[in-house]
Amino acid sequence: MKIKNIAIVGGTHGNENTGVFLIEKLRNCMPSYKNLNLKYLLANPMATKHSKRFIDHDLNRAFGIKDLQNSEKSGYEFNRAKVINNELGPKGKSKTDFIIDMHTSTSNMGITVIFCNINALNLQLAAYLKSKIENFFIYYMPPKSEGENQPYLDSIAPFSLAIEVGPVANGILRHDVIEMTEKTIKATLEFITLYNNKMLPEIPKSVEIFKYYKTVLFPTDIDGNITAYIHEKLQDKDYHELKKGDPIFHTITDQTIYNKEKEPTYPVFINEAAYYYKKIAFSLAKKVSVKIQ
Amino acid sequence: MKIKNIAIVGGTHGNENTGVFLIEKLRNCMPSYKNLNLKYLLANPMATKHSKRFIDHDLNRAFGIKDLQNSEKSGYEFNRAKVINNELGPKGKSKTDFIIDMHTSTSNMGITVIFCNINALNLQLAAYLKSKIENFFIYYMPPKSEGENQPYLDSIAPFSLAIEVGPVANGILRHDVIEMTEKTIKATLEFITLYNNKMLPEIPKSVEIFKYYKTVLFPTDIDGNITAYIHEKLQDKDYHELKKGDPIFHTITDQTIYNKEKEPTYPVFINEAAYYYKKIAFSLAKKVSVKIQ
Repeated sequence: MKIKNIAIVGGTHGNENTGVFLIEKLRNCMPSYKNLNLKYLLANPMATKHSKRFIDHDLNRAFGIKDLQNSEKSGYEFNRAKVINNELGPKGKSKTDFIIDMHTSTSNMGITVIFCNINALNLQLAAYLKSKIENFFIYYMPPKSEGENQPYLDSIAPFSLAIEVGPVANGILRHDVIEMTEKTIKATLEFITLYNNKMLPEIPKSVEIFKYYKTVLFPTDIDGNITAYIHEKLQDKDYHELKKGDPIFHTITDQTIYNKEKEPTYPVFINEAAYYYKKIAFSLAKKVSVKIQ
Repeated sequence: MKIKNIAIVGGTHGNENTGVFLIEKLRNCMPSYKNLNLKYLLANPMATKHSKRFIDHDLNRAFGIKDLQNSEKSGYEFNRAKVINNELGPKGKSKTDFIIDMHTSTSNMGITVIFCNINALNLQLAAYLKSKIENFFIYYMPPKSEGENQPYLDSIAPFSLAIEVGPVANGILRHDVIEMTEKTIKATLEFITLYNNKMLPEIPKSVEIFKYYKTVLFPTDIDGNITAYIHEKLQDKDYHELKKGDPIFHTITDQTIYNKEKEPTYPVFINEAAYYYKKIAFSLAKKVSVKIQ
């Protein structure tokens, strides 16, 4: 099997400017990769125009099979998802072999690649990227229940990755975030070229990934207002081990709230702006070593 | 003259969460200051609810006398400005002696206080705060033309300051930004108490302020799309001297654009998310020493 048709997607969230800028930049000055067809897509032009994450619904949660097949799901993003699925997919029988979807975070996520499925190619790619790129992390978000379909844009193609770079405020361009994202895309295309030509260097036998474990909400009052902020000892400590008793919140009455998880975990997406409306403070992941076949 | 009635205002921009949180926090646990009446105001509740800077118009540009007197100026913020002017003002004959308006920035502004007018009390306060607080800067935004009226919320009162703390992404709470803002408010109230009691410590004879000089726009294409980002050597260098020939932008075609100003200047609000829609990349200020009477 060869990877040939590749889609590079930006602006899935309209206030994450990096991908929008890189779509334009790479469209004009990407070096050519032999035998690879590169296609560029600005995923959510309406949200981009308004510098909003989305207009009606998070586009990156609109690609579950049921939603794609349900024409009664209304609103800008559910329609847009069907258009994108038609152009790059269709999901399950996709004309695109590999999707790279560019995202940014207000959290200190370094360069994170998020896989929505774990397969031999993804793991090899992850190990390859980890050997090439500093401050690089692999995050795996398993389906909510066994056999359930993933709702992410990049789940249209059989192989894919979402790149999540941070910290950066929404609505701005930062040199370091742009450069890290561009570097990760180019390293991915190099990997695919080596893979297609059976020229991959020796890949480690296993790779360390962070697997989603649970979501931690902000404390709130009875009206749902957030009554605490991330403790200074947790802020910016994405991927650092969190032990039982470590401080996690500082409350509006100057109290400290401590972590009660018995086992060590690894917080990610700490203080991500996009999740405030759901009152999500951070997620916890478990660190696991996965064998590469 | 004594300063008695003080308004502490947050959420003038609805996506700057720090002020919104501190309004609630301070309302409940601010220590009392003898002979000071403190009033707390959430300035833009609708924009706060939607986590947007504003609904129809920037509220912090809606307090010019002409706009306040023009009932035909429609939209949420122009109406809200009249309500606030009625509650705290009216401008020119204000029942509030002093307004503290809390803001944040995505730029590396440290703790900046912005004065919309320069008077002996403001200068004494600035010098006092500078002696108490690290990473502290004074920014002065003169009226656009001689005699013109300032459009800022805090221009309602005869004495005021806007506190601008950063960097912080919009839509989130950060421990350091909250703590710096709270510290600046408390130091301001201490100053006012000392001033009222004629117990001010010796104040320096002059203070260094940064005075707005000009605005620098992002390079754009013929459709108005931004075609460059802030150069890595300029990013986060707010208040650092910028010389002729220093790099300022990195373009979409990987070129560098250099500063052409002959005289040294000091960039501020570098890469502020709120100004992207106006294509503003940063402002330049001149450093001036102002005598304190």
